[in-house]
Amino acid sequence: MGKIICAGLGPGDPDLMSVRADRAIRGARQIAYFRKKGREGQARRIVAHMLRPDVAEHAMEYPVTTEIPFDSPEYNRLLSAFYDDWTARLAALAEAGDIVVLCEGDPLFYGSFMHLHARLQGLAVVEIIPGIPGMTGCWNVVGQPMTWGDDAMCVLMGTLPEGDLTRHIRASDAVVVMKTGRNLPKIARAIAAAGRMSDAWLVERGTMPNQRIMPLAQADLAACPYFATVLVHGNGRRPLADAAE
Amino acid sequence: MGKIICAGLGPGDPDLMSVRADRAIRGARQIAYFRKKGREGQARRIVAHMLRPDVAEHAMEYPVTTEIPFDSPEYNRLLSAFYDDWTARLAALAEAGDIVVLCEGDPLFYGSFMHLHARLQGLAVVEIIPGIPGMTGCWNVVGQPMTWGDDAMCVLMGTLPEGDLTRHIRASDAVVVMKTGRNLPKIARAIAAAGRMSDAWLVERGTMPNQRIMPLAQADLAACPYFATVLVHGNGRRPLADAAE
Repeated sequence: MGKIICAGLGPGDPDLMSVRADRAIRGARQIAYFRKKGREGQARRIVAHMLRPDVAEHAMEYPVTTEIPFDSPEYNRLLSAFYDDWTARLAALAEAGDIVVLCEGDPLFYGSFMHLHARLQGLAVVEIIPGIPGMTGCWNVVGQPMTWGDDAMCVLMGTLPEGDLTRHIRASDAVVVMKTGRNLPKIARAIAAAGRMSDAWLVERGTMPNQRIMPLAQADLAACPYFATVLVHGNGRRPLADAAE
Repeated sequence: MGKIICAGLGPGDPDLMSVRADRAIRGARQIAYFRKKGREGQARRIVAHMLRPDVAEHAMEYPVTTEIPFDSPEYNRLLSAFYDDWTARLAALAEAGDIVVLCEGDPLFYGSFMHLHARLQGLAVVEIIPGIPGMTGCWNVVGQPMTWGDDAMCVLMGTLPEGDLTRHIRASDAVVVMKTGRNLPKIARAIAAAGRMSDAWLVERGTMPNQRIMPLAQADLAACPYFATVLVHGNGRRPLADAAE
């Protein structure tokens, strides 16, 4: 009886994966990964050069992504059935030996695997390997300290209502907004309303070969990938000589 | 002319370091690390088994930690002089070849290295290797999803005033509080005032061999290490079958 090992892949550069995840993926005889129908899948692309030639692959294709509203009963029904189905399939596959499930970023931080994790309780042994969250990769490619001293940081989803975004951004020193895409104009309005536009960056595919980094004020708000991240750096308490710089 | 490479060590388990940090540390001929006077230092301990036998070591010992108030002019003066001194010494050491500076967690997320980073601009080539933040290691050892769906998460320092802590915790779904130690009673009051005590965990030395994990409600508030972390998990939007669990 094998384990289901969920390996956090980190922000995208394979060299930023943990030593443990690297070892699990290179040794895997079975892998599974989420992807949108008809795509190769970002997770699969990150590990392409690391897989054994005889690895068995299982693509878990979302039945729906942004085609119908995420708060509709139909969306919920389709996604729940999808997670139920893959819970049973992964548990069955694990009977033949370990299976590694790929997960971008850190699996327990806004990851799809959590929906399987909850369902797999009692059905299979699950091991999770943490990863560098995508946001951490993004603030590293900007190359400025994200938080200093007593800075308060908030992490927000761009799907939140504009008023909620503005309120959170106003209350925080440092800000991360994920799930941007078509929400970017709304996010930009909230950041401007909170008076932080001149501190805001937009990072697309941070740490990947095709990464793009730009001040949010210069970004094309109408053309933003879903997985781009908006960052506002903090600027907290620190020794005086730093503050003068 | 060498580089100054700041390697993020991640949360403490050496197996959770990135492949790139692991390679840099194993190959290093010169390393430097922060520590409290008279201690071995947590960063040095994490990499103890990875170092070349002939590595040259440079311990950067804080002139002061919690002996005097962090907002006093004297604290600022001592710390600024300390960072100025090590900026010059690291730049000189880099002339002989690469030097790896160890940094727990992720270097750009509340890390001491940032004070050197700001000062080293123009004096030396600096490369930063991201790491899994300590908080990510902590929520992984609790083993529950930290954030789901549209959850808003805040990261707070326990050094903030109690009213600020309460206000931020009330406004957020998921909460991380770092720099606990003697601030823990105040943090616990803020979490209770926000109605989240039954969801709160205290994690000490998460992912390290001597880690401790307990519900905050059961913790001894008077005996908490400075680097323990308080976590409140989010519970956001997700497919209905999950919500029923």
